[in-house]
Amino acid sequence: MNDELIQIGRQAKQAATKISQLDTVTKNRILSQFADELMNQTDQILTANQQDLTAATQMPAKFTDRLKLTKQRIKDMAEGLRQVAALPDPIGNIDRGWTNEAGLLIEQKRVPIGVIAMIFEARPNVTVDASALTFKSGNAVILRGGKEALHSNLALADALRYVLRKNHLDENMIQILHDTSHQTADELMHLNEYLDVLIPRGGAGLIQAVLKNSTVPVIETGAGNCHIYVDESAEEKIAVDIVVNAKVQRPSVCNAAEKLLIHQSVAQRLLPPIAKALTAHGVELRGDEQSRKIVDTIKPASPADWSTEYNDLIMAVKIVPDEQAAIEHINHYSTGHSEVIITDNYQNSQTFLNQVDSACVYVNASTRFTDGFQFGFGAEIGISTQKLHARGPMGLKELTTTKYVIRGNGQIRN
Amino acid sequence: MNDELIQIGRQAKQAATKISQLDTVTKNRILSQFADELMNQTDQILTANQQDLTAATQMPAKFTDRLKLTKQRIKDMAEGLRQVAALPDPIGNIDRGWTNEAGLLIEQKRVPIGVIAMIFEARPNVTVDASALTFKSGNAVILRGGKEALHSNLALADALRYVLRKNHLDENMIQILHDTSHQTADELMHLNEYLDVLIPRGGAGLIQAVLKNSTVPVIETGAGNCHIYVDESAEEKIAVDIVVNAKVQRPSVCNAAEKLLIHQSVAQRLLPPIAKALTAHGVELRGDEQSRKIVDTIKPASPADWSTEYNDLIMAVKIVPDEQAAIEHINHYSTGHSEVIITDNYQNSQTFLNQVDSACVYVNASTRFTDGFQFGFGAEIGISTQKLHARGPMGLKELTTTKYVIRGNGQIRN
Repeated sequence: MNDELIQIGRQAKQAATKISQLDTVTKNRILSQFADELMNQTDQILTANQQDLTAATQMPAKFTDRLKLTKQRIKDMAEGLRQVAALPDPIGNIDRGWTNEAGLLIEQKRVPIGVIAMIFEARPNVTVDASALTFKSGNAVILRGGKEALHSNLALADALRYVLRKNHLDENMIQILHDTSHQTADELMHLNEYLDVLIPRGGAGLIQAVLKNSTVPVIETGAGNCHIYVDESAEEKIAVDIVVNAKVQRPSVCNAAEKLLIHQSVAQRLLPPIAKALTAHGVELRGDEQSRKIVDTIKPASPADWSTEYNDLIMAVKIVPDEQAAIEHINHYSTGHSEVIITDNYQNSQTFLNQVDSACVYVNASTRFTDGFQFGFGAEIGISTQKLHARGPMGLKELTTTKYVIRGNGQIRN
Repeated sequence: MNDELIQIGRQAKQAATKISQLDTVTKNRILSQFADELMNQTDQILTANQQDLTAATQMPAKFTDRLKLTKQRIKDMAEGLRQVAALPDPIGNIDRGWTNEAGLLIEQKRVPIGVIAMIFEARPNVTVDASALTFKSGNAVILRGGKEALHSNLALADALRYVLRKNHLDENMIQILHDTSHQTADELMHLNEYLDVLIPRGGAGLIQAVLKNSTVPVIETGAGNCHIYVDESAEEKIAVDIVVNAKVQRPSVCNAAEKLLIHQSVAQRLLPPIAKALTAHGVELRGDEQSRKIVDTIKPASPADWSTEYNDLIMAVKIVPDEQAAIEHINHYSTGHSEVIITDNYQNSQTFLNQVDSACVYVNASTRFTDGFQFGFGAEIGISTQKLHARGPMGLKELTTTKYVIRGNGQIRN
């Protein structure tokens, strides 16, 4: 284990104790100063970002678009910080409290988790978003971004750390790794003594690597092989609108739909208009044999298609004999993110909601609503597709834990 | 990966889907039949237990005492099953619900986790306790007990599985590994495709091994290096009573106190009566230099003592200059289980409760209250000393997760 990383871990743990004791007014004031400072340092940030962009000229446009900062994007980040300042603070809330038989007053109080590490790729805005959310929820954060965004990330973190120093607070409440080697990332995944949780943000490859290697507890986010099942009683307009919206409104994100299952008795009637609308939006369709008999422009799906998250204008289609087959298919292939039934049948809606085992299950709405902002949380650190601790969109509350605070007057146990 | 284990995992996953759909009345009826069947099969269970005991004649008495079943112990297990039947069912509860801006009704509903695996040592009662709690909370369970208890565990599980079959339910809702090799335990820790969580129950060695090796999410339970800090303003009687109770009432368990910190200004007055009372109960004291100047029968403590969980009639004593030093010592050496301040000072009580980072923090009460039954949960699967998912005593609710159930009428995202 490299000494520098241990030092960073130790500093984070010390800073975590201090940040956990900050009151809400102070935290909100700092968040608003973070925003001001990003605006003040816009030129330095853009210069640093230009260094990263110059080094990335060989990368695809999609990549450099994520990496690129502009005045407007910095303004948006500052606005995001002010929005987090305006959110209610979960820390200190008493979730429940009671007096036990021995007369002890037992309260379950919401407290910060401690030290949160994040491993992410080439989006510099994650530096600011993650710092805002961890700061507001009273946690110290260690950020390890992709090497392609290092200058940008350092410039952003410098602005935030400057505000902390100016306020005589421990700047190590927010730390960023200068060393972006794979080896250091791997060591970070084993820094159990100092880290309470590790949250990877990025593509499926990154998340799987972290899940497989980390001994620090991980929150798995963002794996989204989402399904829409069009039931026998689905209305055509609702089916077309929702499938198109869920697939094409923003195909690169985890809550975009990837699979379409259709009940065999309505496939003949509903698949053609749905396929036509999708094709008009440039979606490539891949399907099973039955679907290809109905719409001959559908390409054949391979077995791998059913478990693939495309994050692109591609959708796989399967005709199912009944709702139960759809539910079984979903529970087998889904990543447990978001699934939809389009139906007008009460019993089928209930069955789907009860039996589909995913973070978010919908009747007659687009998967694109699985999002902290759409849910009304005001912020989002990611969408958890695991079952422990947090499931679904994660806001500030999901960055906290609880402790039991117990007041007695001399009680001993018999 | 061995095929048998994969088969067991697959069976558990199938059974989990079925058990998740059982209503409370059915689950309670089965739990009560579990109890009846244990009573019916008492002779077979005792015969199987005798086989284990015969093979364990070389083991220490403490070990065989845990292993041994009697008519009374079987009756107690049956009573435990009936108590779990009487507890409220957390499944199906709506934790919160609201309508978002787009008009979607979003409800966060409590659902089972899925498949829970437990690795435990030589206490056959864990087979029944764990089955009762996982069954009531709608989860399938895979039990891997110690090889020394295999016949007893199989006999107990047979009785439970017989009840499931008799009721035309999937007997694989409760499975027990016949193969108790270390290799199979290790493979179980990597059965990510089928397991949602792994809970080790037993000594520190077992728990650390699971934490280090498992890629399946683990809930860490039962590591208890618990501290009592006697503050300047502590009343003598309360201090003596609580320290003695926390140390001697049941020294082998994780919520027994292991360390005593005393404010230097009261050490001269309070350490002698506390030490006298502990010694009278057969407790061996180990202390720092200052404490040994006050009570000369205290043996010298080694650095390792501060982080050791004795689970025995041993306690280490340290004189601290002030409350802040006590808090820092605790936050450095504690396993994060339960810590107590004995004080009559309001501000110091607040500081301790706010700054000590453990699952349970007490003012003026014994650590021995950290227990699902004492908390009023009616049951306990263990005491979590980690921060994610569950912290402190874990009852039925901690064996559940949530999913978002969302009802719309055609909403798409703009």
